[in-house]
Amino acid sequence: MENVHVSGPAESSISAAGSGDGPTDRHGLRERVSAELAAFVDRQARVLDEIGGDGADFEPVIAALRTLLDGGKRMRAAFCYWGWRAADGAGCAGETGDEAAAVRASASLELLHASALIHDDFIDGSDTRRGAPAIHRRFEQLHRGGGWDGEPERFGAAAAVLLGDLVLVWCDEMLTRCGLDAGRIHAARPVFDLMRSEVMAGQYLDVLAQSRGLSVSTPQERLARARAVLQYKSAKYTVERPLQLGAALATGIADGPLAGALSRYGLPLGEAFQLRDDVLGVFGDPAATGKPAGDDLREGKQTVLVALAAQQATDAQVKALRAGLGDPGLDQAGVEELRYIIRRTGALAEVEQRISALTRTALAALREAPITGEARTALGELAVAATDRSH
Amino acid sequence: MENVHVSGPAESSISAAGSGDGPTDRHGLRERVSAELAAFVDRQARVLDEIGGDGADFEPVIAALRTLLDGGKRMRAAFCYWGWRAADGAGCAGETGDEAAAVRASASLELLHASALIHDDFIDGSDTRRGAPAIHRRFEQLHRGGGWDGEPERFGAAAAVLLGDLVLVWCDEMLTRCGLDAGRIHAARPVFDLMRSEVMAGQYLDVLAQSRGLSVSTPQERLARARAVLQYKSAKYTVERPLQLGAALATGIADGPLAGALSRYGLPLGEAFQLRDDVLGVFGDPAATGKPAGDDLREGKQTVLVALAAQQATDAQVKALRAGLGDPGLDQAGVEELRYIIRRTGALAEVEQRISALTRTALAALREAPITGEARTALGELAVAATDRSH
Repeated sequence: MENVHVSGPAESSISAAGSGDGPTDRHGLRERVSAELAAFVDRQARVLDEIGGDGADFEPVIAALRTLLDGGKRMRAAFCYWGWRAADGAGCAGETGDEAAAVRASASLELLHASALIHDDFIDGSDTRRGAPAIHRRFEQLHRGGGWDGEPERFGAAAAVLLGDLVLVWCDEMLTRCGLDAGRIHAARPVFDLMRSEVMAGQYLDVLAQSRGLSVSTPQERLARARAVLQYKSAKYTVERPLQLGAALATGIADGPLAGALSRYGLPLGEAFQLRDDVLGVFGDPAATGKPAGDDLREGKQTVLVALAAQQATDAQVKALRAGLGDPGLDQAGVEELRYIIRRTGALAEVEQRISALTRTALAALREAPITGEARTALGELAVAATDRSH
Repeated sequence: MENVHVSGPAESSISAAGSGDGPTDRHGLRERVSAELAAFVDRQARVLDEIGGDGADFEPVIAALRTLLDGGKRMRAAFCYWGWRAADGAGCAGETGDEAAAVRASASLELLHASALIHDDFIDGSDTRRGAPAIHRRFEQLHRGGGWDGEPERFGAAAAVLLGDLVLVWCDEMLTRCGLDAGRIHAARPVFDLMRSEVMAGQYLDVLAQSRGLSVSTPQERLARARAVLQYKSAKYTVERPLQLGAALATGIADGPLAGALSRYGLPLGEAFQLRDDVLGVFGDPAATGKPAGDDLREGKQTVLVALAAQQATDAQVKALRAGLGDPGLDQAGVEELRYIIRRTGALAEVEQRISALTRTALAALREAPITGEARTALGELAVAATDRSH
């Protein structure tokens, strides 16, 4: 049962111990998720072509989505798949067809994520994503290149909203069509539905926190808000819910002891993952993050890291933070100054310590969880990968 | 079977022959759809409150959605419900519980529509919707009232994107939870999925047509594009697909002779409905439309009406159309001038003629359709209501 392979001989050479691109690539998972996404987008491209007639109006849409979906670490798909395996999905069903369907269901979460990225980048005014222009920028360029009427920015915004919507509904279309038994998909839907409401609500809380900024609330309030955003926008969305969705697809039970055990591993790990992401958003190497250095500072992201720094800052440092955070024109010297403050206040060290503690908590919970051995190994590796300094 | 009532005595006084607010109110349908929407939003409000903790951060979100969902003619819900009844949904299932579930499933389409309105209003820069501020404007005001950081417009845009997303995923959550058998919902999903892709693709084609405007393409090309937008954004989305979804929920068959018959009624009716809407967008009474007079002209909507006028216009008229269409500052005199051109070129008369012909075609198809007698009567009344000059 441990070595079920269904999608061609090329992948059977990848050992179950995990090789290639690391833990998300066990069973060639990353490749298989990408292949499922590509096949689904091919199918949808035919639907759009039918609508567009011979005008080729949707070619730029499909090209943009292919580029966006080509990248990404497939974290959510990996957690969903290993949630399925954790519940002995392959074992209890005993059908290789189900294993392929579980990969497809897992891959559908990457569409939800792509939608969130498209809308988030537009909301944040980000220029790049996964090393390429953000969708709204890409369609601004299309507008400029065509010399069309109206403002390129408005066209870019409209295209980003609509493409994000399209990919959002494709997510649940792909889940529905994954090939697993309709009853089991239905039973797992409460997890899926809650995950989607949570991530959107979390995004709204994030936007709200940024708008309220440094001037309205106290440092303690800001820290509490940053933690709430992190819970819903990241910890639950990236790790806990995908795991529980996979398990529910395997068992047909959305809630129960297994969901609880996966939560005890998933929530602290998800929090650690986001804290790592916050650190990389300020200190990360642009080559690795695919975003300009210090972009989170320019966007004024109210992260736990920033909230901690503000809480422990001197008056002069608070002034510098207020001036620099959210300033789109912040230059390299300004980025360096804010980085210095974030180190100097001890915020960076505190966050690093918290990442370590959370990861340990997650791994301890993993040891106790009533799951298959292979899933335990894979989830242990994923925990390390998700919180690694260089990811 | 004809008089199944499940939701309290208040509605049993409404006769099956259709009274109260007209055809969408047969069986008190409009009230029942509104009640189901309100109950669903109450449920989701509790989910959001849990996420927001005691901060009441989601109160403005829920209040805004309640206001938006309070209005509307419930056309899509009505067509879905009568598609279900057309397939003898109440008859073949024979359970009153199923009838309530069908109303709930039909009501879910109003969430899809609300999402489309929120995003569309933001894209078009519209100020009002259903007589109240558009969602992005409402959240701009919230930002201004709070004296928060950053630009109110950016916060309004972010809120509109995220609230539209939230309501979009709630639509399929409500459909999934409607209470009908999971297998039948699963069987009907291809119609639902296609409908969603079509309306978003249609919106994109609409935005594209507006951007290409009068300067890039020929009058013939513009007319063809306007017709494609109308098909997908309106005819299929408002009438054909809701009918087919209802029928598929009743029969468990997404495609077949009944779907074809409903299409022969639904497509011409949907086209007539949109043409009527286009006429009202230029000539309608603001009190009835809930939008300022001539708003479609200010937004530069590339409707069939406008495309026909442009095709038949003199050089001087083309110049006036180019100058006025899409000018946000167009005053009453400018609106009157464009109205005069649209009449003078014969475009208005041609569209009115087309509405009549399409409605006749729809009614002829309805007479031939293999559906229940009560559905035939109700759909006949809906056809008149959807294309009425004063709607």
